[in-house]
Amino acid sequence: MSSHFQLLKTDTGTAARRGRLQTLHGPIETPIFMPVGTQGTVKSLTPAQIKETGAQIILGNTYHLNLRPGSELVRDLGGLHQFMGWDGPILTDSGGFQVFSLAKLRDIRDDGIAFSSHLDGSKLFLGPREVMTIQANLGSDIAMVIDECPPWPCTREACRDAVDRSYRWAQQCKQIATDNGFLAGGHHVFAIAQGSTFDDLRREAAESLAALDFPGYAVGGVSVGEPEPEMLKQVGATTPFMPADKPRYTMGLGTPPQILKMIALGVDMFDCVHPTRVARNGAAFTPDGLINLRNERYRADPAPLVEGLDNYTCRKFTRAYLRHLVMANEILACTLLTLHNLHFYLDLMAQARAHIEAGDFGPWHRAWVERFEAGEAAAQRK
Amino acid sequence: MSSHFQLLKTDTGTAARRGRLQTLHGPIETPIFMPVGTQGTVKSLTPAQIKETGAQIILGNTYHLNLRPGSELVRDLGGLHQFMGWDGPILTDSGGFQVFSLAKLRDIRDDGIAFSSHLDGSKLFLGPREVMTIQANLGSDIAMVIDECPPWPCTREACRDAVDRSYRWAQQCKQIATDNGFLAGGHHVFAIAQGSTFDDLRREAAESLAALDFPGYAVGGVSVGEPEPEMLKQVGATTPFMPADKPRYTMGLGTPPQILKMIALGVDMFDCVHPTRVARNGAAFTPDGLINLRNERYRADPAPLVEGLDNYTCRKFTRAYLRHLVMANEILACTLLTLHNLHFYLDLMAQARAHIEAGDFGPWHRAWVERFEAGEAAAQRK
Repeated sequence: MSSHFQLLKTDTGTAARRGRLQTLHGPIETPIFMPVGTQGTVKSLTPAQIKETGAQIILGNTYHLNLRPGSELVRDLGGLHQFMGWDGPILTDSGGFQVFSLAKLRDIRDDGIAFSSHLDGSKLFLGPREVMTIQANLGSDIAMVIDECPPWPCTREACRDAVDRSYRWAQQCKQIATDNGFLAGGHHVFAIAQGSTFDDLRREAAESLAALDFPGYAVGGVSVGEPEPEMLKQVGATTPFMPADKPRYTMGLGTPPQILKMIALGVDMFDCVHPTRVARNGAAFTPDGLINLRNERYRADPAPLVEGLDNYTCRKFTRAYLRHLVMANEILACTLLTLHNLHFYLDLMAQARAHIEAGDFGPWHRAWVERFEAGEAAAQRK
Repeated sequence: MSSHFQLLKTDTGTAARRGRLQTLHGPIETPIFMPVGTQGTVKSLTPAQIKETGAQIILGNTYHLNLRPGSELVRDLGGLHQFMGWDGPILTDSGGFQVFSLAKLRDIRDDGIAFSSHLDGSKLFLGPREVMTIQANLGSDIAMVIDECPPWPCTREACRDAVDRSYRWAQQCKQIATDNGFLAGGHHVFAIAQGSTFDDLRREAAESLAALDFPGYAVGGVSVGEPEPEMLKQVGATTPFMPADKPRYTMGLGTPPQILKMIALGVDMFDCVHPTRVARNGAAFTPDGLINLRNERYRADPAPLVEGLDNYTCRKFTRAYLRHLVMANEILACTLLTLHNLHFYLDLMAQARAHIEAGDFGPWHRAWVERFEAGEAAAQRK
């Protein structure tokens, strides 16, 4: 079952891992960041531009795609890869998280979650059968189980219920994916370990799901409002109890320093809207922190966003031009900053992989984080 | 003076011309359409994507670029080509038209036009000296003189004043461009013939400006609210009195049929926001008229926008996917539809050039217009 994932090297000073995950649409070198393509598009980029960022795999959102345009339509048009013109691997979430964060009038039942669409209020339902069917319709390379994501903070009792329900749903999802041939067809299904801030429940969730022998595992229920140290603590309380020979994924995270810190905790896969969202707000990543191009200081700045970084935005354009586009509310600002920010993330992942291979990931990532955070702090003071 | 323009062929059945205009940034094959890059960007496209549309030359707007980011800043950053990353030719307008259409509190004086910025209300002034200096700062391959564009309809007296003032301003612009070395440096300056609906004033404007021996000539004061037959009549009342050995340009026009009809009247160059603007509203050009992708009929349509048209949008995406992007308000809809619409226009220009060369432009363009207009009429009835 686990030959789809090769663990190529494990770091000695940290728990960082260098791996390779095989999918129906090619291999993924880990650690890896997955750009988010919520509605069948990584916002403002063509598939050719997504490739230019160095992306190996992208994420699609089941909740959104099921509402619009509908998973049957996507299936009838050849699946999500063909629909959106992306021939690399695609991971889809189950939609459960968006039901908790976006939808209204939720009713959590044993067989799933009833809710109202955030678009038009229509009554909908997502349970194990629905999410596995939708993701099969989309043709996902990696499908996620549906889970219950408790809020932060939550009581131990509420967390207990969420862990138990998530376990039952994961069991059912695996059964469905076995019965309908999804797993046998080479698609993967990843389970999600909940447990909120309760270390023993985190361990129990990870170990019980490990026994179900999924192709991969995610840490769920993080980045739901808790402070960063708490978030990292929860990840660190989960990964040691996940199988070493399966890929590990933290969902919806994070800043570049957070991702490096999670790689050090043994996480292999990440997705986050942060780099694409801040691009649309006129901000760009640099090794010295995020810079906001609305700042007057960039008005006549002839430098590229990052000297020497090999992406279209940095090769072709000055900060002054990018600032002009931002100030003039030009769409091209979104495109060029999204392209840069994603490439910055993916280049960072490539550096992380090289440093794990070289055996110096620990000191390298600490120095990288220190420089980035010092730059951010200096910008705050100005 | 006129060796920069080669008149390669003149059609026999119509007044259509096949030509080649040399500029500092390379030759332009005419007839040609120029995508509009108002604020230093052809909205939603990277320079690489602009090239993909087949664009040979783009247009920049002096009024907008002078307000933001300012022409001195653009000059200090290497000129508009380097600023925006476009290495092909650029034509800039004088800003006069936008002063009439966008700015507030205009005061037309003998030395220029005082007005208030539409962005922040600040007091500004554009006269012959200002517009030639700004366009020199931008590094335009083709600069336009400032002119007075009378409204439609207007009295003969008002038109007379506009023609006279535009003539004096054109004279002054040419003198300034001679004195500051702009013309000697290989940049071109085009004059603009006004005259509203008065055929004799149109002829007088064209002939008096022709005597000043400009590198090219534009028909101004069209597309200011008049019906299409009136617009074509004004163009037809002007072009016969323009020098045959200079390029001719109608500013701010038009639909594909209008452009073909103006080519038949002997016009060589066109610009218009129409293809880019309708793209942002979710509409796409086809040989059977403009289609609106918001229409439910395209929900599951697996066809490309135009079968066999060789652009990225048509090669990669279905109407169903493009409609999904439009309905979900995704930025990528603007990019892909803009790319398609501009390529559609530029491909049409390439066809027009080929048919002028082949000697069958007359019947070809009439059949093309008939099919397009029949498609539009059929869509109206549905």
